[in-house]
Amino acid sequence: MPKLWNETIEAHRRAVRDAILDAAWVLVAEHGLTSVRMSRIAEETGIGRATLYKYFPDVEAILIAWHERHVADHLERLVELRDRVGDAGERLEAVLEAYALICHRREHRGTEQVAALVHRGEPAARAQRQLIGLFRDLLTEVAETGVVRDDVAPDELASYCLHALAAAGSLPSEAAVRRLVAVTLDGLRPPH
Amino acid sequence: MPKLWNETIEAHRRAVRDAILDAAWVLVAEHGLTSVRMSRIAEETGIGRATLYKYFPDVEAILIAWHERHVADHLERLVELRDRVGDAGERLEAVLEAYALICHRREHRGTEQVAALVHRGEPAARAQRQLIGLFRDLLTEVAETGVVRDDVAPDELASYCLHALAAAGSLPSEAAVRRLVAVTLDGLRPPH
Repeated sequence: MPKLWNETIEAHRRAVRDAILDAAWVLVAEHGLTSVRMSRIAEETGIGRATLYKYFPDVEAILIAWHERHVADHLERLVELRDRVGDAGERLEAVLEAYALICHRREHRGTEQVAALVHRGEPAARAQRQLIGLFRDLLTEVAETGVVRDDVAPDELASYCLHALAAAGSLPSEAAVRRLVAVTLDGLRPPH
Repeated sequence: MPKLWNETIEAHRRAVRDAILDAAWVLVAEHGLTSVRMSRIAEETGIGRATLYKYFPDVEAILIAWHERHVADHLERLVELRDRVGDAGERLEAVLEAYALICHRREHRGTEQVAALVHRGEPAARAQRQLIGLFRDLLTEVAETGVVRDDVAPDELASYCLHALAAAGSLPSEAAVRRLVAVTLDGLRPPH
């Protein structure tokens, strides 16, 4: 087959896959994890049940794929903020704030069941390592500008950031999240 | 019955209960959660099986009680450090370091199964609230001395501390834990 045709098939498969993930997510958000069936997902996506099973074996696999895509989107957004042109300190602040807001919105979406399902296993661990790596690289770069302390290794500071910002999950407002980001950033500054 | 007699019985019951918790914990640490039976716990404690069942219905209940006692001991230790005579800033540092070391040792004990069992439900949630309360009270007190920032509310700072210090669980050494405490403390100081 010509290359173009293969690409078209690939794009089509990706579009169907995305539509399945979106449909499953909408159904889970509306009706809860346990009441969503494969047949309902096929119907909502506008495909046959047999086609759906060519993509995924069960609802759990769909939700895990949804979460992987969701995490990949978040990582992409954070990488984009990190790699922007401009002052390293400002980029650090932008990444910290974006991550804190992700934590904040996650806890407010009321999807604890799904979280318990997807926050284990290798994909989740890999995403966590990528996140740590992203923070570590940025902190290493920023440390050279003197904006960030150099008496603690960047990977230890990265772990501090990720844990501290996770507090955003239990904060009541985005204003409180921004205060948390300011406090966390002050911990990163060179000591007086 | 005279009061003294009641107190003696109460003390005896408490001693038996403590011995059961200790025995169960030793067995779980040695053999793993799933291979520990009630009969083995009774044997290790030096009591009959029937007596054991008067105290606890199953292994899970014993481990939950063990964890409650364990958490209560930790809280007591933190309260004791908080209430010492002396400089408020130093007491804050002592409490932060003690809590970080608790997190550090917890993750290094290899008791993930037990953690999954006990870190849910009302007693765990109550302990978490007590911990937040302890940090908040101390931060409120210290804020008055000017050692801690007053542009963020003490309960938000308490949540920041607890989350940031939980990073101690994945740190490789106590030296790294002390660096984490220093970074976390710097986040609490009045901004330059």
